[in-house]
Amino acid sequence: MISKQGMKRTICYQGIPGAFSHIAAQGFFGNQHTFTGLSTFYDIFKEVEKEKADYGVIPVENSLAGSVVENYDLLYTHNVSVTGEYYQPIRHNLLVRKTTQKEKPIALKEIQKVYSHPKALEQCVQFFRKHRHMNPVVYNDTAEAARFIASTEERNIAAIASQEAATLYDLDIHKVDIQDNPNNWTRFLIITSLHRKQDILAHNTMYKCSLMFTLPHKPGSLHSIIGIFANAHLNLSKIESRPIHGTTFEYVFCIDVEFHSHDYSLVRDLIQSCVEMTNEIKVLGYYRKAHIEK
Amino acid sequence: MISKQGMKRTICYQGIPGAFSHIAAQGFFGNQHTFTGLSTFYDIFKEVEKEKADYGVIPVENSLAGSVVENYDLLYTHNVSVTGEYYQPIRHNLLVRKTTQKEKPIALKEIQKVYSHPKALEQCVQFFRKHRHMNPVVYNDTAEAARFIASTEERNIAAIASQEAATLYDLDIHKVDIQDNPNNWTRFLIITSLHRKQDILAHNTMYKCSLMFTLPHKPGSLHSIIGIFANAHLNLSKIESRPIHGTTFEYVFCIDVEFHSHDYSLVRDLIQSCVEMTNEIKVLGYYRKAHIEK
Repeated sequence: MISKQGMKRTICYQGIPGAFSHIAAQGFFGNQHTFTGLSTFYDIFKEVEKEKADYGVIPVENSLAGSVVENYDLLYTHNVSVTGEYYQPIRHNLLVRKTTQKEKPIALKEIQKVYSHPKALEQCVQFFRKHRHMNPVVYNDTAEAARFIASTEERNIAAIASQEAATLYDLDIHKVDIQDNPNNWTRFLIITSLHRKQDILAHNTMYKCSLMFTLPHKPGSLHSIIGIFANAHLNLSKIESRPIHGTTFEYVFCIDVEFHSHDYSLVRDLIQSCVEMTNEIKVLGYYRKAHIEK
Repeated sequence: MISKQGMKRTICYQGIPGAFSHIAAQGFFGNQHTFTGLSTFYDIFKEVEKEKADYGVIPVENSLAGSVVENYDLLYTHNVSVTGEYYQPIRHNLLVRKTTQKEKPIALKEIQKVYSHPKALEQCVQFFRKHRHMNPVVYNDTAEAARFIASTEERNIAAIASQEAATLYDLDIHKVDIQDNPNNWTRFLIITSLHRKQDILAHNTMYKCSLMFTLPHKPGSLHSIIGIFANAHLNLSKIESRPIHGTTFEYVFCIDVEFHSHDYSLVRDLIQSCVEMTNEIKVLGYYRKAHIEK
């Protein structure tokens, strides 16, 4: 919807070009914008809050690794609004340095060290079990591992990263899809400043609303909140409780409510009726439900 | 309770001596047992399932990083029973190589590289902001980082790890408690074979029961399950939904129900009444509720 307007936006993500966050940002917005890689998630929130960037793209959940709780903590404490979601399939590839015409191509059995982010290495355990001569070596980031092996003269090393990283850093893809589980995806949220005018909801479209709240300490309080949405036949696509950052037994709850655009005012009313049942409640935003593209 | 019987048990954990999992295992069982460090969580489940080890100690949640979903996946798919929980405070320390009498002690400003697990580095962001000349370097594990710096002659490096790792690898603690957030703890579960006789519940004691289940795809089904416990005035200390490993939109729910030992048969009956409302349900175990020791 943003690309249709033909406006060039500034979008920030965590990492360097070729990181899955960068690929997701391009997947959501298209390629024609300015994409800025920052070192931390915190930096993204600050840039968006100060309106130095139009949008930020942050991972919140991976199908294998679970929630990125750091970003939920940041969503709870920063003045930003969620304006979209995007599911990025995570496909890991074994990348090696391009060989010159004089050199023999590197054989699988010659590869001794494989650099990548610890999560990516974990997600290729079966691959390492099959190729026991390869040693996984942890690196900050998948794309950084790719950039590193492109920069070194060492021959018997490889990186696990995206196909996009292979293109960007001019590497050969030795083997595609080496992840154990084909159903590996990361859900990203798109955040923007609270002051940015939100789009009007499209007709006949599925939306989500993300909420975070804390509850009074009594049995049944969560049941009552969930009942509000259950009685209206609305589906919850996520529910999670976790200790509030910095406390021991105070919990914050995150839920995502799915709704049809014609139920928008109903959902707003239901959320209003949650207010008196919660200690604190924050509506992160209303946004179009996304689907996983394969 | 195990140490009272004076029996020596075999207990496995993930990592090497000095890892937080090792410290938690000793905290729960006492020091007089045989502790075996294994490379993966999967290995722990296999050892316990085959009764090659009496118990396994696995991290399931960190107050700052969230759930260790890999272990929930393993709990769901393996024939083990949860028989205890333990909260381990996570305190990070800056460790340096011991200097000989001839050498000057290493000054903070001389330290150029700091090795540790990526999560530990993340949890000391404020420390790195204060000491911008230090570069965090990712390593497999906190204890392994400590062992590494003990083994090298390089002078200007440090590791972030536990005090126990400092003792084990004969390192100096340059600075204690460098974590950003003092409220950093990891919750561990103690697993054992299904065939091991469980202890009888103690009188007048708080217990927990952990459940994992999948629900039919209709709005309100989660509300009904939670209602079973809410109507009996039982508190849920954890609730989480996440995609089933290997699927896209099928969710598995994890809940922890707190109960007083005199309500044990009530809780068993309530769980029985959940069976027909779920597609599949697994009772991970009944175990004594633990507290966080500071």
